[in-house]
Amino acid sequence: MSLATVQHLIEERKEHYLQQLFTLLKQKSISTTNVGVRECAELLNEMMQACGIQSRLMETAGHPVVYGEWIKAENAFTVLIYGHYDVQPPEPLEEWLSPPFEPTIRDGRIYCRGVGDNKGQLMAQVLAIQTYLDSFGELPVNVKLVFEGEEENSSPHLATFVEENKELLACDLVYTSDGPMHGSGIPSVELGVRGILGIELVAHGAKWDHHSGNMGNIAPNPAWMLIDLLNTMRDEQGRVLIEGFYDNIRQPTAYELDLLRKLPFEREALIEQIGYPDIEADAETFYRLVSLEPTFNICGFHSGYGGDGSKTIIPATARVKMDIRLVIDQDPDDIFQKLCEHVKKHTPSIEVLHQGDMKPSRTSAELEIVKVVTQAVRDAYRVEPLLVPGVGGSLPDYVWTQILGVPSVMVPYANADEANHAPNENMKVDLFYQGISCTCHVIHRLGELSK
Amino acid sequence: MSLATVQHLIEERKEHYLQQLFTLLKQKSISTTNVGVRECAELLNEMMQACGIQSRLMETAGHPVVYGEWIKAENAFTVLIYGHYDVQPPEPLEEWLSPPFEPTIRDGRIYCRGVGDNKGQLMAQVLAIQTYLDSFGELPVNVKLVFEGEEENSSPHLATFVEENKELLACDLVYTSDGPMHGSGIPSVELGVRGILGIELVAHGAKWDHHSGNMGNIAPNPAWMLIDLLNTMRDEQGRVLIEGFYDNIRQPTAYELDLLRKLPFEREALIEQIGYPDIEADAETFYRLVSLEPTFNICGFHSGYGGDGSKTIIPATARVKMDIRLVIDQDPDDIFQKLCEHVKKHTPSIEVLHQGDMKPSRTSAELEIVKVVTQAVRDAYRVEPLLVPGVGGSLPDYVWTQILGVPSVMVPYANADEANHAPNENMKVDLFYQGISCTCHVIHRLGELSK
Repeated sequence: MSLATVQHLIEERKEHYLQQLFTLLKQKSISTTNVGVRECAELLNEMMQACGIQSRLMETAGHPVVYGEWIKAENAFTVLIYGHYDVQPPEPLEEWLSPPFEPTIRDGRIYCRGVGDNKGQLMAQVLAIQTYLDSFGELPVNVKLVFEGEEENSSPHLATFVEENKELLACDLVYTSDGPMHGSGIPSVELGVRGILGIELVAHGAKWDHHSGNMGNIAPNPAWMLIDLLNTMRDEQGRVLIEGFYDNIRQPTAYELDLLRKLPFEREALIEQIGYPDIEADAETFYRLVSLEPTFNICGFHSGYGGDGSKTIIPATARVKMDIRLVIDQDPDDIFQKLCEHVKKHTPSIEVLHQGDMKPSRTSAELEIVKVVTQAVRDAYRVEPLLVPGVGGSLPDYVWTQILGVPSVMVPYANADEANHAPNENMKVDLFYQGISCTCHVIHRLGELSK
Repeated sequence: MSLATVQHLIEERKEHYLQQLFTLLKQKSISTTNVGVRECAELLNEMMQACGIQSRLMETAGHPVVYGEWIKAENAFTVLIYGHYDVQPPEPLEEWLSPPFEPTIRDGRIYCRGVGDNKGQLMAQVLAIQTYLDSFGELPVNVKLVFEGEEENSSPHLATFVEENKELLACDLVYTSDGPMHGSGIPSVELGVRGILGIELVAHGAKWDHHSGNMGNIAPNPAWMLIDLLNTMRDEQGRVLIEGFYDNIRQPTAYELDLLRKLPFEREALIEQIGYPDIEADAETFYRLVSLEPTFNICGFHSGYGGDGSKTIIPATARVKMDIRLVIDQDPDDIFQKLCEHVKKHTPSIEVLHQGDMKPSRTSAELEIVKVVTQAVRDAYRVEPLLVPGVGGSLPDYVWTQILGVPSVMVPYANADEANHAPNENMKVDLFYQGISCTCHVIHRLGELSK
């Protein structure tokens, strides 16, 4: 059975598929502010049913999951496709060249909030199933679809949802298309994410700001308190000094390091992209640092006066926000506890606030199933895909690898410059169609495992 | 010659003197925003002339100085009285209980912007001269008055004015009534101020903020750069590690330390006032730290995201504002240079911005003239005054001690809770009259030196 039919059908239906995507895009679904989310879930549910998928809304403590399935046979290979129908707020509105919820095509790209993140990629999955069904009358595998409505809000109820529906969601592989493709434009198969622990440290000095002339050297300065504490937590080389921080890290395998060395890397382009001249790294060092090593990042430090000129005060409070990226097998709860103990030991008066966390994930690059998916992506794009052991950001991928205990692969369909979370979010029209084709190829290749 | 006549005249003219102060208060003179400043200078000039003082406006590169004099004889003792007729902006307006430029009496206090800082104290000097002249027909000393219009804007042209008019301003003593009295309510004779050096350190990372998931460990974090630098500049005990920082400090004399020990000190009241429980100090330690030791204060630290929740970025910039209080004989230019060298050595990419400075001042507590002034204050308030070797804040007192090279004493007339620079600035009515009386006593006692 060849996929020429599928390709032909996609070609024929290009305009129709684009209109279906536009219908979904026009329906707002801003999860953070709860604008149009349920309406979008209901619309998506109807569209999935029209594509031949058995779907329904499943309630959570937050926004509903749209769950769909097409079951071939109980013992057939089962792939679970994950995506999200919620979008980021469109602000700042004045920076959009066309209205954020009116899909507009310019220079071969669709501009609309949520088109890359994640509606265009999600619809590519749904329309691939329709295309495959219309081409062959059936799928060669069982497909389950989990489209959540809270991803842009840190997926607060996804883990519980998966925990409570383990049987329903049982599968052999989880497949996700979200986020941007590699900057080189080459498609990639990504096998894990870093976890994250968000904290805020709050140092309190006197009850109110003091005049620095009157009370200097006497009223405690919370900015200095934080600086002194931070200095005990990390050395000048960036190594974290919290006891046990590195204890549970699983070192990358020789195979994974080899994969890193094969990823496209151009130092000059990187310097341009980062906007900083002193970047000393080769491919392995670079990719290892940005994806397979933990970070200890300060994302905000605020204390006292920040306007023009000066204001001679001793601030009453100082706050530092940190996001600590974690790698397999670091556990956010464990790291948080170790950090609290460190603070308690050095400056017990400093408050530690927990700002949220997510576990890391990793799927072995050496699994047979990874080779099958890679082959499918190679078929679809007619180019050798990149095999990426891990990406630097944090997604709730652990719910599949840790709660369901299955391999999880991510194959992004959107262009690298999709501007997700930013004004003028966009997705190249061709990549939308290629995404539909890619999912058909994946289903097709996985079907060979069902035989 | 007794001062009973003087006291009697003040008593008789109470209502009239209050109305003269009100006239000056109603005339706005906000130097920072240039509202009403010249009008106020002209009004003050007329009022001084009406009091029997030879006065005139003297131009500077900024707002004019109102200069006045009453000359007894070329070889008579000469006292120069310094004050300022400009005021702080009145904002935030909504916090004033009565309009900021309508003098209003409530509970024995005059409420008005500038009443304590410095118009009430300045008018006490002018009206004292009128009172003395009307009582005795002449003064026993030469009096020169320098009332500037830019004190609330850091006196940018005062040093040049003094430099260019050394002959005109030649004198034996400078006498200033500004700022609040000691918290105990006991009058004080203050003999110096700390200097100040204001700087801003700016650390630059990448040209723009980066997603901490994508570029963590690669894009440099300027907040960490600043923390690492600050850590090389000061140890955890607060001692400054910049080479040569302490080199030129003149240690307090045994007599000065003895004066500190005699100042009123109540630890419990201090803890209440500061709003922090862990204050371990006795009188000597406390007053030494807040007035005779340098500080290395962070008045602002700002980098990255400071709103609710978190934003996972690597900030592009980090800024710290510092005000460094200096003591005699530290020189702001010298300290600035040492600081720049330190930064250059450790993190040359960090910018050092100069935000302004002022030299410290000190007049010896053992001078005969200090004893004379102290006796006059004792006469006026009928209480033993506090002799204070130095105060913690920064005023342009060095223009007298360093440029004119004469002793300078400060005797504040306003209540400790005058709320200068804040809404509902006020001065107790009785303290206004006592200020007039005090200046008469000072002129009287200094007159004994002319004989």
